[in-house]
Order: sequence, then C-alpha cells, then structure tokens
Amino acid sequence: MRILVIGGVAAGAGAATKARRTDENAEIVLFEKGGYVSFANCGLPYYIGGVIEDRDELLLVSPELFKARFNIDVRLYNEVTDIDAAAKTITVRTPLGDVTEPYDRLIIATGGRPAILPIPGRDKAGVHTVFTVPDADRIMERLAKGAKSAVVIGGGFIGLESAENLRVRGLAVTLVEKLPQLMGNMDPEFSDVLVGELERCGVQVVTGVGVSEITGGERTDGVLLEDGRRLSADLVIMAAGVKGSTELAEKAGCRIGESGGVWVDAGMRTSVPDIFAAGDIVECVNLVTGQKVRNPLAGAANKQGRVAGANAAGGNLRFPGAVGTSILKVGGLTAARTGLNAREAAQAGLDYECLYVPGFSHATYYPDAAPLILKLTVEKQTGRLLGAQGVGRAGVDKRIDVLATAICGKMTVFDLENLDLAYTPPFSSAKDPVVLGGMIAANVVRGEVEACLPQDLPALLAEEDTVVLDVRTREEWDAGHVEGAAHLPVDELRARLGELDKRKTYAVYCGVGYRAYVACLVLKAHGFRAMNVSGGWRAIQMSV
Amino acid sequence: MRILVIGGVAAGAGAATKARRTDENAEIVLFEKGGYVSFANCGLPYYIGGVIEDRDELLLVSPELFKARFNIDVRLYNEVTDIDAAAKTITVRTPLGDVTEPYDRLIIATGGRPAILPIPGRDKAGVHTVFTVPDADRIMERLAKGAKSAVVIGGGFIGLESAENLRVRGLAVTLVEKLPQLMGNMDPEFSDVLVGELERCGVQVVTGVGVSEITGGERTDGVLLEDGRRLSADLVIMAAGVKGSTELAEKAGCRIGESGGVWVDAGMRTSVPDIFAAGDIVECVNLVTGQKVRNPLAGAANKQGRVAGANAAGGNLRFPGAVGTSILKVGGLTAARTGLNAREAAQAGLDYECLYVPGFSHATYYPDAAPLILKLTVEKQTGRLLGAQGVGRAGVDKRIDVLATAICGKMTVFDLENLDLAYTPPFSSAKDPVVLGGMIAANVVRGEVEACLPQDLPALLAEEDTVVLDVRTREEWDAGHVEGAAHLPVDELRARLGELDKRKTYAVYCGVGYRAYVACLVLKAHGFRAMNVSGGWRAIQMSV
Repeated sequence: MRILVIGGVAAGAGAATKARRTDENAEIVLFEKGGYVSFANCGLPYYIGGVIEDRDELLLVSPELFKARFNIDVRLYNEVTDIDAAAKTITVRTPLGDVTEPYDRLIIATGGRPAILPIPGRDKAGVHTVFTVPDADRIMERLAKGAKSAVVIGGGFIGLESAENLRVRGLAVTLVEKLPQLMGNMDPEFSDVLVGELERCGVQVVTGVGVSEITGGERTDGVLLEDGRRLSADLVIMAAGVKGSTELAEKAGCRIGESGGVWVDAGMRTSVPDIFAAGDIVECVNLVTGQKVRNPLAGAANKQGRVAGANAAGGNLRFPGAVGTSILKVGGLTAARTGLNAREAAQAGLDYECLYVPGFSHATYYPDAAPLILKLTVEKQTGRLLGAQGVGRAGVDKRIDVLATAICGKMTVFDLENLDLAYTPPFSSAKDPVVLGGMIAANVVRGEVEACLPQDLPALLAEEDTVVLDVRTREEWDAGHVEGAAHLPVDELRARLGELDKRKTYAVYCGVGYRAYVACLVLKAHGFRAMNVSGGWRAIQMSV
Repeated sequence: MRILVIGGVAAGAGAATKARRTDENAEIVLFEKGGYVSFANCGLPYYIGGVIEDRDELLLVSPELFKARFNIDVRLYNEVTDIDAAAKTITVRTPLGDVTEPYDRLIIATGGRPAILPIPGRDKAGVHTVFTVPDADRIMERLAKGAKSAVVIGGGFIGLESAENLRVRGLAVTLVEKLPQLMGNMDPEFSDVLVGELERCGVQVVTGVGVSEITGGERTDGVLLEDGRRLSADLVIMAAGVKGSTELAEKAGCRIGESGGVWVDAGMRTSVPDIFAAGDIVECVNLVTGQKVRNPLAGAANKQGRVAGANAAGGNLRFPGAVGTSILKVGGLTAARTGLNAREAAQAGLDYECLYVPGFSHATYYPDAAPLILKLTVEKQTGRLLGAQGVGRAGVDKRIDVLATAICGKMTVFDLENLDLAYTPPFSSAKDPVVLGGMIAANVVRGEVEACLPQDLPALLAEEDTVVLDVRTREEWDAGHVEGAAHLPVDELRARLGELDKRKTYAVYCGVGYRAYVACLVLKAHGFRAMNVSGGWRAIQMSV
C-alpha cells in the first residue's frame, strides 16, 4: 500500500500520521511545496506581536520526527503539479526536476491561500499576507527595519489579530474593512463592540470603505481609500480571507460542490476512487442546516485529516460535519459564535427568534466577575437551539463551547434551562448564563412572554400605538435611557397601572431583561399587551 | 389561590418568585425561620476569607424587594412546625406565638443543615458550622477577637473552602478527614493533588483519622485525633456534610425515597396532593443511571424551585434530573466532576472503562498555558460518555461543563471526537482536551488499542509475563520513571524490536499517552501484545 499525502500543515500532517497509526506497513510519503510542515499557523499573528517570543514554538513537528516516529517520508519544497487519477500517479516538481509518483491512495490537503484583492499596487514591497512561517519572517524583518505604520486590509480573524499585534509592536495601525461591519460571521451589533476594543488598543478602524490603491514607489508608503482618504503605511497586511487551493483536486477530476469546495463524503472520500481530501479545500456539512458549506478552520482540518488518513489506510472513521464554531480574542475582549447567527438562520429559511442574555463570567459577589452578552438563535416552534454568539471579557469561550456541544447534541432550550453545569462562585453563577439563556428562551417559546430586540426600538418608537417603557430605577434612568421612552420603575408598577393605556402595546426594558420580564407578566395579567426588549439596556448598549 | 412557601434560600425564594410570575393574582407567603432570605450561601467561605469584602454582597434580595417587586409576603423568624395535609394548613411559630395558616398549594423548601458529628465537646464555644449568614458573623467575630488556629473537620467542598479561607486570614489551619481521601465524590487519585495544593497554601491535612474529642473548657482549645495526636484550635469548623431537613415533609406524610430524600415527580410534586418540594430535601434523578439520588447543590435547588413555583401556581414545567456536576476551587487549583466516577460506575453495575487525558488549558505555544488532567468514564460496548473528572490550574471548568452538556445530551465518545469547539491559541488547542479525550476513548472502544490505568502498574510490575515499557526520551527517563520499568524510546522502537520478547505483554507509557499509543500500534502490528498506560507519566504523577 502506497499512500501519498499532498500538503503538510494541519490536515495533511494529521492524515499522514493517522494513516501510519492505521497501517504500520504502508509506504507513506508527504509532499509539501514549502519549507515547513505541521506549523502553528494560528500562532503567527502572536509571533508577530511578540506574544509568542520563540519562533521555534511555531514549528510543531520536524521532518526528522515524521521519519523517526512515524516512518513517513516528508519531502519539502516538493510541489505537486498534476494528478492522473486514471494512471494513479502524481507529478511532482522537486528541486531536482519533475518526477512522477504512483499511489494506491492519495490524500489531497493542499489547504488554502490568502485571497489577494485586485487592488493596484498589491505587488509592491511591504505588502504581506499572514499565512506561513516565511510570511511571518518577512514581516518580522520589516519590523526590525523600523516600520512605523501599517494598514491591515480585512476585518476578519487574521485582520483583527494582526492589527492588534502590530499595535502591540508600537506601529500606528489602521484596519480597513470594505463591508459595514467587522467579523462578517457574526451579527452586525457585535462589530461595534470589536471596533471599540480595537480603538481602546490604539488601532484606528475604518469600515464601509474599501482600499482603491496601495501607493508608493517600489515600496508601499500608504493606501488610498475609496472615499479619497490617504493613510500612511510602511506595511500593508492583506487579510481578506482564505481561498481553498482546489486546483489540484479539480485537475484530478474531483467533483466540486456548490459551495466551491471539494465534495467529500463523511469518510473524506472525494468523487474519484482512492482519492481523499481534507482541510480548507473541502466542503463540510453544517450540522444545523444539513447544507454543505466552507468551514476553513484548524479544528475541522485536524479532524478531517485524521479521518482521511485512517480511511486511506483501510480504516473506517467518519467526520459528520461541523456547526461553525469560531472564536476571536482582541485586546481584553472575546467574541465567539457557533451554529447559525440571525442572518444565517434567515438565509436557511428557518422560523427563528433571537434572544440576548447579558450576564457575567461568574457570581458578581466574587471578585473580578466580567460582563458578557450571549445572543441565542432559537427555532420558534420547536425550541431547538440553532446558534449562539457571545462577546465579553471572560468566560465567553466556555459558554460558546457549551452551546456548541448542545447544538452538536441537537438539544433544545428546554434542555438548556435544566442543564447541569458546574457552579461555585469563582467560576459561574447558580444560574449560569447558558442556563439562564435557556430559561429566557424557553419562556418565550412556551408563549409565556413576548420578546422584541433592541434593534426593533427605532421602529417601535415610531409606532403610534406602542410605548417603549423603561422600568429601571430613577438613578438608572438618569444615567442614560432610550430617547422617547416612558419611565415607570417596576417596583411601582402595580400601584401605578392606572397611568397606563390598554390601547397601547408596551415594549418594556430594564437593565438586563429580568425586571422587564416581571413587568411584562404583571402587565399581561392586567390586560395590557407587553413585550420584553431582550437583554435590556446592556444589550441596547452592547456594553461588556 | 393561596400559595405558601416554607424556606427562603435558593429553592424557596426561587419558587416564590416563579409562582408570582406564573400567577399574578395568587396570594403568596414565604416563611423563613431565620433572619435572611435569598442569601449567597456559596459565598460564605469567601466572605470569611475576606475575598468577598462586603457582607451586603451576600444578601441578594431583601424582604422589601420581595414585596415591592413580587407582591410576596416574606415572614422572617417564622418557623413552620407542622403541616396538616388533610386540613391543608400549616402551624407557624412566630415571634408573637403560634398561628395556623391555610394553603391551597404548599411548597416545602426547608433545605439542609450541616451534619453535626457526635464528637464529645461539639457544643463548646468556638465550634462553628459554615451554613448561614449568622454562622459567618460568629466566625468573623471570633477572627476579630484574635483566633490564631483552626481545625476544620471534613474534607468536602465546605471543608476545603473554609480551610483555605481561614489560612488566607493567617490562621494555622489543619483539615481533618476521617476517610482516606478528600472530596469523596471524586476518584481517590484526585485527593493527592488537592492535599498537595492545600499544603502549598499552608494548610496541614490529615486523612484517614477521625477526631475523637474537641478539647478545652467552655471554649475549645483544640482537638484530639483518634490516633492520639493533639491539634490546637481556637476555632473548630464542623464541615461534615449537609443533612436534608426532611422532618416537616415527613410530618405532612410525604413519601421519602430510598435515597432518604423527599420523593418528587418531574414536576416537583410530592406524594401528597398540593404539596411540592424542592432543593436539598428532595431526591433527584441521576440522568446517567436513572436512579434517584441526593444532589444537594445550589444549581439544582434553583432549577427545582423554579419548577415547583411554576407548577404550584398552575404551570407545567419539568425538572428532569441532574448528572451530578460539581466544582471546587482550592488555591490555584480547580477540581470538578460530572456524571459517574469509576466507583459510581462500578456501583451502578455498568461495564465501563476509564481513560486519562493530560492536556493544557490552551495551546502550549501561547503564554500561560496551564496543565490539566481529565479522566473520562466511558461505557465499553456503546462508547456512551458516563462521566468525567478533571483537575488543573485553568480551563477545567470549561471542559467539565462541555462534558456535562455532552452527558446531558446522551452523547458518545464518537460524538466527542468530532465535537466542534471554539479554537484560537489563547483559549484552546486545535484538538481541545475534550476532543482529544473523545479520540483517545473512541480508539479504545473501537478496539484499536488496549488501555490500562496508572493504578494497575503495581500489579503489572509484579506479573512475570508483563513488561512495563517507558518509551520517552533518555532525558525524560533520567528525570524520573516507574521503578522496575524498561526503557526504549519510541523513535528507536522499529529499529530495536528484536530486543523485545513476543511472549511478554508490554504495558507502555510515555509523557501523556500519545507516544505510547504510537508504540502500542507498532508493537501490535509486529505481533506483540501491548497496552497503553492511560495518561502516561503525567497521570502516573497526577501532575498539574
């Protein structure tokens, strides 16, 4: 059995070693067009920022170790240029010339490459991507030579992480995102929080405006924005997303799915016999919608590589799919998501409702409790948890992982409201935000109370027969409130019902949603129509 | 509708407010025998330690707020002494004498009380429990008067938290546990880690020896241990567990289950019509075994109270049960559990296997990665996750919550190995410890590799036909290894197979289990019998 693996980072390296663990006797050769295998690409921005000090930390497994431990022949600077699926051979461009290599099983893990926007000036010196170890080396060299300013193009994971880390290095940094929001995989209201945190870190942020030109001579000196503004930049980081390198798989005749990724079954088999694929090039079942999507993330790549390697060597593992979980750290803030956000639920044609859950990392009476806000996406009729997003200063990773697990387990908000999570004051509250979210959502799904969203407030304020009612204390009202709202503290509500009008609908808000919920039930019991502005003032302000 | 609630802490307070939210028009009266309702009992040890500085932080909701916001009549210092279920009345001892109160629905949430061991001298001044606000006040008074030494009796949650916090206050503290291990709800090997951490904090620990007498005159001056040792103590904390106060429920004729708790259905209805119960007094379905058990924890009490309150007021909520999740912080260490530990799985008659997963809170190449060890309990035939325990310096709470959710969702290790958790280097690894644990366990369940436990090593070393084989590097071997083991680094294994003996079984260990796993597969492929010592040297040492 001769197993060839194309690509040596997350999916390829994992596939090769799992193939060995599945078949001790197979001949396994790994071809890598670059000079490094199994490196920590997710660590590159932090290496640039000096947070990871030692470059060797990025290099996880050496070719020598692949040989000694796994009896895998790693060939660096070997670029596979063609696949002949009929002949079961590949063509490899080696430093010594082209060679043809036969295979019994082939695993394609060519990964992705950074998208290069067709901006004039993109080829100038000083324009970099953050994708490989040599990329990082080149940026470090530029920093050592005294780069003072940078423009980062792109408001996704790598853009935000790079902007923060270059700022840590002392550069004047501007992040430019053509779309109106950062982190396009989250609902828009989360973008404002991220912009605020980047600015707090000293990064300037421009959204809704593209870059029309990278300026300078041979070397970049800045960018020209579409609105005519000019920004100085000794360094331009192109972080406009990742494109799957599917060309080789296409040459082999592998079917490409509607998502643009290589089609694979749950065993990571492509449509071509004896060819497997894994990592950034494949499409992946979204376990919430059942649809095939792109999900170019390290966690999936590792799991897919393992399954491809096992099965190429005669095993029988399955990768059922993913739920789109991802997480970002920027400054002191964490933003994460799993499942479907509101936009994705709408696109999938689902009948959904969103609810906010402002909370804290742990019991507020124990020191250092940090604020967080979760947003749940819930199927209206069934209460199925469709997705969750979160932002905060601690504990967001835990809650999103719990919610991701609940989504993988096809759980409902009725399961969440009774979820048995670990509680002690340093780590959680007696009602953990996830459990509280389950209770809030279950109350709505059961029809106990109606909810609306902070985003609905402008429309509600404009409606003749709707009153936005603030039920917080006088002190809270005085410190800031929704313009145009009425004020009646919840603790005075029963005594002052006579001041209200049964022909109106009351959109009630408080600090986080609990007092407004109590108020809504009082109003409802007395014949008023009321709805709770989900998440209250904290969600209106998105304050964490 | 007149709803009476007996008990005003977690379950009772939650029941009363949920009853109001369910029925705006009911008359709701809450009777509390003490002077406080809805206080943060889980915070008491931290208040004693000065970690929580402000006593008011412990008082979550005042009687005035119950009235204003919820129209609930809270009666402090009102002890319910009898229930006449036929007449549907209760007898209340009030400061002004006994009164009889009629009810339509009654919710019993009398909670628990600290077990007082029948040790001579237990009534002396200076012997305290840590259960109520007045308890904490008395201890604070004692500290203010210059207490210098303390003995804590009991090695459970409150014992460990109290010992640590008294030490924070500068007292010389000894914790005494009669059983051979601390935290009896975890497997024994976790106890050593906790003892080490307590000692690091300056707390002396005595296990396996009980207290035979509390010595001194009117006031305690120390304790006499069963082995004759004497310990000084200006302060003795009795933390020997919590007993459910089921007497009133028994008087009402409520059925008591085999666990000793009040029997309830999923709607928190007792066997007596119109009487509900919630909190520390009830028994609770263990969702893994289906058996009814005691589960006197705040999280369950809150959820049960909510369900009891809703249903007493005409609602229809369910509390399906719990999986026994709990967590402890001591010093810089976290210890947590969920589902069944090894002992509980054995008691339940399940065919289980345990596996260790040494890991880190996040990617080791990102700063401040902290070690942790998980131990999974897995059903052998089905791969169902039965339980998990964990100890470590960061990130244990997250993994136990994820695993608790997986258990609640009835997930298997095959689900875990592909779980879509959030990854970025500051928060996790590309293979999160939970996912890695799923892979390790799934490999064993699939029969790919055999496993044994560090605890098996003494027996294995004594067996004639078994060799314990260390496959780590020479440097690791020299730094410490299992006495009696042989040594052959994994990277030399294929070349040196001739040195091994096919009549032997090899119990292979490495640092964390991965290299030994690779070695086992190599050995197996070459006709040797091999098994992986789960968790390797880190689990053997239980080093976190």
